[in-house]
Amino acid sequence: MPLISPVIVDLKFIPEEVDAALQGAFPGREVINLADPVHEGRDLSGIDYAVVWKSAPDLFSRAPDLKVVFSGGAGVDHVLTLPGLPDVPLVRFVDRTLTTRMSEWVVMQCLMHLRQHRAYEALARMHEWRDLSQPEAADVTVGIMGMGVLGQDAARKLAVMGFKVVGWSRTKRVVEDIETYDAAGLDTFLDRSDFLVGLLPLTPETTGIFNRGLFAKLSRKGPFGAPVFINAGRGGSQVEADILACLDDGTLAAVSLDVFEREPLSPESPFWTMPNVYVTPHVAASSDVKALFVHVEEQIARFENGLPLQHVVDKVAGY
Amino acid sequence: MPLISPVIVDLKFIPEEVDAALQGAFPGREVINLADPVHEGRDLSGIDYAVVWKSAPDLFSRAPDLKVVFSGGAGVDHVLTLPGLPDVPLVRFVDRTLTTRMSEWVVMQCLMHLRQHRAYEALARMHEWRDLSQPEAADVTVGIMGMGVLGQDAARKLAVMGFKVVGWSRTKRVVEDIETYDAAGLDTFLDRSDFLVGLLPLTPETTGIFNRGLFAKLSRKGPFGAPVFINAGRGGSQVEADILACLDDGTLAAVSLDVFEREPLSPESPFWTMPNVYVTPHVAASSDVKALFVHVEEQIARFENGLPLQHVVDKVAGY
Repeated sequence: MPLISPVIVDLKFIPEEVDAALQGAFPGREVINLADPVHEGRDLSGIDYAVVWKSAPDLFSRAPDLKVVFSGGAGVDHVLTLPGLPDVPLVRFVDRTLTTRMSEWVVMQCLMHLRQHRAYEALARMHEWRDLSQPEAADVTVGIMGMGVLGQDAARKLAVMGFKVVGWSRTKRVVEDIETYDAAGLDTFLDRSDFLVGLLPLTPETTGIFNRGLFAKLSRKGPFGAPVFINAGRGGSQVEADILACLDDGTLAAVSLDVFEREPLSPESPFWTMPNVYVTPHVAASSDVKALFVHVEEQIARFENGLPLQHVVDKVAGY
Repeated sequence: MPLISPVIVDLKFIPEEVDAALQGAFPGREVINLADPVHEGRDLSGIDYAVVWKSAPDLFSRAPDLKVVFSGGAGVDHVLTLPGLPDVPLVRFVDRTLTTRMSEWVVMQCLMHLRQHRAYEALARMHEWRDLSQPEAADVTVGIMGMGVLGQDAARKLAVMGFKVVGWSRTKRVVEDIETYDAAGLDTFLDRSDFLVGLLPLTPETTGIFNRGLFAKLSRKGPFGAPVFINAGRGGSQVEADILACLDDGTLAAVSLDVFEREPLSPESPFWTMPNVYVTPHVAASSDVKALFVHVEEQIARFENGLPLQHVVDKVAGY
């Protein structure tokens, strides 16, 4: 084993962006980018670190001696479900850019639903100049499920835009100027939410949580009559058959989905072209790859200097 | 003339919204809603007040004794160009909802361009799951021309969303945390602006200001290479033949237009369905009609109690 351990990079991102971000990254340390076929079949034993996003299931059997595993994103379910996860610290990626990108997406989706973007696009296709009765942001309450770093940032920005905002998390969070609810307050929270934003991690408790039973409890008192569902957390939290049925019978007015039960979304999915559905391909909070490597370098430096790692995941809670 | 003067209402808004907002408005005062055919040909002499948005050109000859004219929106060019404008105070409508609605639209347009919404919609139409290289808001400088109440609010909210923001106005405005330029600094301002947002009033100086010469001075150093133009001020400020030509030859990457040289926009206009153009029918900051009438009631009360009117327009400057 070399004095300075190499770092395994196994990121299913845009390959050119990973390559560009690796220029000058990890100075003095070998980088084993598994996207490069030269490393196929290479012995990865004795290596301390891996930075991963949607690795192949044999990663941990190929690299049995990892001391720290770094997730390439905020979510870690893609790591927790890999076979043979070693009992070592799992570090998630939280940084400014990941958070601000998520909020860009969430605020944009809320504004597009508020401002009836699809309806105006349909009028434009017909070359028709006509204004629609227009509620303002203050007429809409956005409920956010998942009030961690991402949820709190989105909440603050939605409030600045004029929306009323309420937050929910399993255990109560106190957030300045935002009314929050915990597990026991779920029904009250849902009854207040005209738009529901999902920013939950995927855990056994959140699997399938966004289903017909939950959608039926959302507010129907908002300016659009029926609620809007916006999910940028994890696809495993949503029941897509229920979403389709609820859009069909009016339980939901519209949805924005960045995540899906199975990714990539099947070309056969009806979601792609439904008039009241916005689809994006799990890009709401795409990581800035350069920032990811800076974060990993910092954490490795802490680890090698005997300092505690930051952003370590609670593997039992799942986030 | 009755002791309490009636108020003329002549608003080319959605008629049902005006009717709804008039319920309970102007207590104790007759309302002459010119949208109601019962008032056709009625003698309007001796009447003190009119609330107008895009009136017929004979308004001031029909109502020659007005003491105050209220604009139904922030802009007043539609009043200033009416024949026979009397030499009495012209009051514009500025309120919270008009400002926040404009910022909703501006922030939404900036986010849709930033997050490549049209490109993702095109991929969705092809049922194609693919992520695009994605700059973040901090990579984009938004330049705002027109730093009055609307421009300052939009600037603050764009900055909260992470954009870099610079402002321009004919006479220098000092705005907290925003770098601003005046007439002499126009070229420097344009050279910094990756996205240009127009929120200018229509005056002789601003007529046709958004033309090829100006677009050619915009930044091409931004993440999308070519600049984006977003106009929610007045259509008379833009040269649409230049916009089309600049989209065609790449001087502009994309535009969002809420206003047009001639409104309604002709059904023959190419803007309706161009892939890099967002069109909305002059609704960016549609007035809340109830709030408008509250504002007019307040100003009439001030006027009748000998207090100075607020938001009075400088008819020479034009805003």
